[in-house]
Amino acid sequence: MERVFRHFQEDLDTLKARLLAMGGLAEERVRESVRALTDRDQSALDGVLGGDEPINDLHIEIDDRCFKLLALHQPMAADLRVIVAAVKINTDLERVGDLAVNIAEAGKRYLQHPPVKPLIDIPRMGEIAQAMLRDSLDAFVRRDIALAEAVLAQDDLVDALKTQIFRELLTYMLQDPATVEPSLDLILISRHLERIGDHATNVAEDVIFILSARDVRHQGVEPAPE
Amino acid sequence: MERVFRHFQEDLDTLKARLLAMGGLAEERVRESVRALTDRDQSALDGVLGGDEPINDLHIEIDDRCFKLLALHQPMAADLRVIVAAVKINTDLERVGDLAVNIAEAGKRYLQHPPVKPLIDIPRMGEIAQAMLRDSLDAFVRRDIALAEAVLAQDDLVDALKTQIFRELLTYMLQDPATVEPSLDLILISRHLERIGDHATNVAEDVIFILSARDVRHQGVEPAPE
Repeated sequence: MERVFRHFQEDLDTLKARLLAMGGLAEERVRESVRALTDRDQSALDGVLGGDEPINDLHIEIDDRCFKLLALHQPMAADLRVIVAAVKINTDLERVGDLAVNIAEAGKRYLQHPPVKPLIDIPRMGEIAQAMLRDSLDAFVRRDIALAEAVLAQDDLVDALKTQIFRELLTYMLQDPATVEPSLDLILISRHLERIGDHATNVAEDVIFILSARDVRHQGVEPAPE
Repeated sequence: MERVFRHFQEDLDTLKARLLAMGGLAEERVRESVRALTDRDQSALDGVLGGDEPINDLHIEIDDRCFKLLALHQPMAADLRVIVAAVKINTDLERVGDLAVNIAEAGKRYLQHPPVKPLIDIPRMGEIAQAMLRDSLDAFVRRDIALAEAVLAQDDLVDALKTQIFRELLTYMLQDPATVEPSLDLILISRHLERIGDHATNVAEDVIFILSARDVRHQGVEPAPE
């Protein structure tokens, strides 16, 4: 029993390490997609488009690890929460990888037009979303409830930036039809970044759920207004 | 042991029934948001905006049922897959409820302007997304792999409609700046409907995973191009 227990803790630690690796990959792909957009770097955008195999492989591997942990060790309440949370976090990270692809796709269309404006808010939004992702995963691994709560607070900042980007681009579109198409792509990219922030928020909520057995979901937190 | 087993099957059946109820609620909210948009029915949109408590309550209840099933019965491989899939499906359905709210929010803004065009493609997209949702849950409960695969095939139709809606609205926006704001809201609504189709696709993939122990995820299925 002692040996099985130690084995379980090792497997759980490996699971956490793999989730961190997946989070690192997802974050890196978001960073690269936004950087390539900002630098108008076509080939880097193609790199993001063609590079989601490692993250997809990790997605399947981590799911598999969770199932094995559940099936072989039949963990009790506290560990059960961690493993089920890992299944959910794994799904969120995989979606973040997909959103990096969506950003790269919109970015490629955006580059077919002259720049609408210098990109400042979108890289800023990207940085915040990446930091949220990193912090939420750190909170998971370090069992840090204060850090998870700090992530939830960041989400308002992302929403405010999204609204600001939308309003600014709307004025361009109303003034000059030539900016309509590229502005639309920037609006879509800001929505993709918002959704990355939402996924980080999901992770942070799972962490709070694990640590406090308190369910912070649906406490007057409505989906972000568009 | 016999009694525990029967108890487990009953709990599992209840879990499935509650997931179906949740799916019905989510589908109903999507239907109502699109109908209210099409009929320009402000008060029905307000009803959608204020009515997500039942679905949020069910979300927490179902999660709780899954945890209890895992903790009390320590199910083996096949049942384990069903319960972990239920956790994931529950998350997808809750997001669908959020997206109905997003549609209602964009709908309220849309109604502040004269109609851009008669709404035909968006209700059609809504119907397909609802059918996908319904079929994916039926496939889960009835263990119907062919039905789950049919849902996956429908997703291309949703993407094609989304692209068609985008192109049409773009021509309006380029011709007449007065249509820019309301057209943007219709584009966002079509994206929300696309995401509802994506959630139904997730459910269908989980069903195939449960039934065939075959992982259909990441088999060259890239995120939908924008």
